[in-house]
Formats: sequence, structure tokens, C-alpha cells
Amino acid sequence: MNRVSSLITLDDFNLLLQEHHPFAAVLQAQVLEIGAGHARVFLPANASHQRMGGIISGPMLMGLADLALYAAVVGATGNSHAVTASLSINFMRKTPPGGVLAQATIHKTGRLAAGDVVLIPEHGGEPVAQAISTWSVPRSAAPVQAVLPG
Amino acid sequence: MNRVSSLITLDDFNLLLQEHHPFAAVLQAQVLEIGAGHARVFLPANASHQRMGGIISGPMLMGLADLALYAAVVGATGNSHAVTASLSINFMRKTPPGGVLAQATIHKTGRLAAGDVVLIPEHGGEPVAQAISTWSVPRSAAPVQAVLPG
Amino acid sequence: MNRVSSLITLDDFNLLLQEHHPFAAVLQAQVLEIGAGHARVFLPANASHQRMGGIISGPMLMGLADLALYAAVVGATGNSHAVTASLSINFMRKTPPGGVLAQATIHKTGRLAAGDVVLIPEHGGEPVAQAISTWSVPRSAAPVQAVLPG
Amino acid sequence: MNRVSSLITLDDFNLLLQEHHPFAAVLQAQVLEIGAGHARVFLPANASHQRMGGIISGPMLMGLADLALYAAVVGATGNSHAVTASLSINFMRKTPPGGVLAQATIHKTGRLAAGDVVLIPEHGGEPVAQAISTWSVPRSAAPVQAVLPG
Repeated sequence: MNRVSSLITLDDFNLLLQEHHPFAAVLQAQVLEIGAGHARVFLPANASHQRMGGIISGPMLMGLADLALYAAVVGATGNSHAVTASLSINFMRKTPPGGVLAQATIHKTGRLAAGDVVLIPEHGGEPVAQAISTWSVPRSAAPVQAVLPG
Repeated sequence: MNRVSSLITLDDFNLLLQEHHPFAAVLQAQVLEIGAGHARVFLPANASHQRMGGIISGPMLMGLADLALYAAVVGATGNSHAVTASLSINFMRKTPPGGVLAQATIHKTGRLAAGDVVLIPEHGGEPVAQAISTWSVPRSAAPVQAVLPG
Repeated sequence: MNRVSSLITLDDFNLLLQEHHPFAAVLQAQVLEIGAGHARVFLPANASHQRMGGIISGPMLMGLADLALYAAVVGATGNSHAVTASLSINFMRKTPPGGVLAQATIHKTGRLAAGDVVLIPEHGGEPVAQAISTWSVPRSAAPVQAVLPG
Repeated sequence: MNRVSSLITLDDFNLLLQEHHPFAAVLQAQVLEIGAGHARVFLPANASHQRMGGIISGPMLMGLADLALYAAVVGATGNSHAVTASLSINFMRKTPPGGVLAQATIHKTGRLAAGDVVLIPEHGGEPVAQAISTWSVPRSAAPVQAVLPG
């Protein structure tokens, strides 16, 4: 990924989530950074996201991974209509207390984009999960601006 | 899977979710059936679960798939401490209006269980997603009863 | 998949493998059946395909799975230029003595096709592996006939 | 992975392949380096490994990825009886002329190990594929020495 700057600003991406992606509010994740093919998204600790054992549930971690990949894909392509085509995740450790940070990187763009994401504990330590994913990027989609309210 | 009946009743499984898996309330999915290595779980239509285009978001579908697999694993093993080790999903179509039904099947038990799940639209039609998954089943875990309140 | 008959005959598919896919000779697999979105391919027992323990190695099983999916995709689309975009496999059991049969099914066609494949022992029993996969199908590819010698 | 040195030497690993893993000779891959949780394995260009278009076939790339992961797992655990439990791969680009180098890294050991592998062209450029994988590591397995001839 050679481009230096994201094709969407962090503010515009957050607006995109608010206006068009209601599910993102369920996750309550915070997009910390978005670049041209990378993104960092943080999932705060939240009792309602837990599963047995007081750890963050797999579904919430998969949601976090998917959202971070979406941010990275939109940052790389400017195409907000991209959708997940496949996602494979390995859960490697139980989450320690605290939130989880997702770092997504896109390795290929085109009509089928591909990348990976690593989930690491807020307070450091070994990664809790790793995923690879492909994304379908429609060719004729309206640019990001057209789907944003302003 | 030779066993005829589930190692947990539907009522006890729902109690397990309520008492020990807070994240399940976020999904608002309904466990319709649980057997010894299979389960059916329904995700009703819910505006807050949507992504751009008015379709059910990938994270909610992955959560549904994971929950259906968990039900099938607990039905097959009686071990509520099972955790997802890996999950791979293909998203094949946008969800049509209505909810989505997940049908999970376990093909192998042991300390590492494995199975698949298909997601089909409530009102019929082609599957919207398909996943395969492995689950780590701790050997020394307390039986289901020990983690239930009564 | 509604089509009744394959878009390529079994003879033409075998010719396609011989003429354009040298790797298929390494596997020595036999395509038993090809339909519009399904295929059955057999990998005979072969000492040179084994890994420690006298079982068929993972790489040979992945090759078998991929080849069966390719046959099913070409049977469904007629497009021999299709290439694997992603493949996820769970290895569930060691292979018993004998060969392995792969049964592939395509659940979606289009520029990105998707399907699954199950690997079962020649002499019956539980499946040894299960995979899901997506395939990139070029739109403008020459039809199958154009790549066959005659 | 904190250990500094591999639990098997490169020579012993090559001997392990020769004596117990016949399939490795089919791939003709060269193990360049093995460490405690990482490995580099090279697949030379070979006409018999190709698929349509003169590119290296998916099955050979999956075999390369699997072998590099195996080397990294044995390097990290010393346990030659480890077997692939799951593998998910994204194929991102056609292979350019030349061979392919696999770089595998293990992120978790234990009875279920997990790691990733990236496949890069011999002569440089963007990665052609990326995979994540889990491995079942038997607890009571004989140490590496016991399975080696000397």
C-alpha cells in the first residue's frame, strides 16, 4: 500500500458509522486511527460484552476485527460499500482485564481486497486473536461523500 | 455423533446464557433447538443490527454463527466451558428482509471439537453465509450443572 | 444451483487438467463426477503422499479439496480461469488406511463463487476434513473451449 | 515466544522430513531456517507445480505454507507429532516468475498452537498469500529424538 494518506478522514469515517452502520453502536468501539490500508480500533471493557469466565466474548472480538478491517479497507479504497466476503479468526488466549485493540492492515486492494488484523490487550501482552479476511469492493459504488449526510 | 439426546436441555441452555453469557443478550437470538451435536438458533430482524444497505451486519451474523456452534458443542459434550478456537466464514449473499436462522452441526468431539453452521434467511432462499469452526473443550471442566445457579 | 447439467463434460475437464494444470498430475487424483456446482474427486492411497504416522498429509488433502472445488466451480460456471481466493479447512481425524473422496458443492456463483467440500475415507466412516472456499471468477475469461486443444 | 533457539536443528528437521514425511519430497521445498517459533521455507520454481497461466498452483502454495508452519511449530515445541488442526489462506496475487518464500511465525504454543505464514515472491514484491493456522500438539508424544533414526 503506497498511498500515504487515508481516502477518508477519521471524522468522516465516524460519521459514516453513525449514519449508516447502526450495528457499530452495539460494539461501542472507538476508531483511533485510519490510514490508507490500515486502522486501529479499540473495544473498551464492557460487562455486557462478556462470556463465561469474565472474558470478552468471541462475537464481540469478531465484530471488532471486522470493523477494524472495514476501516482499513475504506481508508485504502474510499469505498464505503465494501462488504466482508470471508473472515477467518484464531482465538489464541483469553482476554485479560481491560479492553482490546485491533490493528488491521490491508495487503491487496482491487475488486477483492485482502488483509489481516491482530487483537492485542489494552494493557499489553501477547495477542488474543488474529484474523485474515477478504472484502468485496463494488466497482460502481458511489464515492464515500455521496453516502454521507453533508 | 451417535448420541440421541442433548447433554443439556433447551431450558438449561437458555439459563446458562442468561446467567453466564451477558453478550448473548446483545444478539437477542433465540435458541430454537439443541441436540447432541446440532442446534438451531434464530436471529430476528433488528434495525440496530444493520449495516449500510439495510442488511444484517457481518458481526451480528458471526455472533449468531458462533452462538449456534456453542449450543451444538454443549449439546454434544455437556461442557459449557468450551471456547471457540477458530472460526472461518464466507458471506455469500446480502440478507433479505427478515431474520436469519443458523443451523449448526458438530462433526467431531474430543478436546478439540469441529463443526459447521449454515445461515439461511427466515423466509427461505439460498444461504447467506456458511462457516466452519473448531472449539477447545477443557477436559477437567466442571459439568454444566455446576455452573448453573440451581 | 438450479442448472441440471455441468457446463463441462468429465472428459473435457480431464483434458483441461492434462493440458493446463501440471500440478494435478502430482496429486494423481481421479475426477469421478462433475456437475453444475458439484464434483466428486478421489485421492488414492499413495505412500509418497504420507506424513508421519502413515496417514495422508495435510498438503495432499488440501490439494484434493482445492481440485474438487475447482471442478465444481468449472462445472457451475464453465469458466476454467477461476482461481482460489480463500480456503479454510478443519482437519478432524487422521485418515484411515485407503484413499479419500472429496465431495464439493458450490453455493454461490458470480464474480466471487463460494462453496464447501467434505473429505471422507474411501472405506466409509466419519469425515476426515471439511473446508469452505471462495473463488474469483474472471468476467471476461475465454470460455472453456478456447483453452482446450481441440 | 521467548525462547532464543530452536528445539530442533535444521539438520535434524531435514532428517525428520526425509525419514518420516514422504510428502515433503513431492513439494521439493527447502527449509532455510528454523527457530523457536519461526521458520523460512523456500519453494523453487518448478513447471510441474504450475496451474493454468504458468503460475504456481494453490495446492503447492498451501503445501508450502503448511510445511513452514510445521517447521515453526516443531522449532517452538520440539514435538514432531504436531498436526494441522485448521488452516485458512487468502490468495492475493498470482505468483510472478520464480520461487516463493514462506515465513511462518508461531504466536501461541500449548496443546493447541497457533500462528501465521506469509508467502512472498523470490524476487521481491507484494505477498502472494497469507495464512493463519492452528496445530494440535499431543501431550504425551515421544520427543523428536525418539522418532529420528539415530
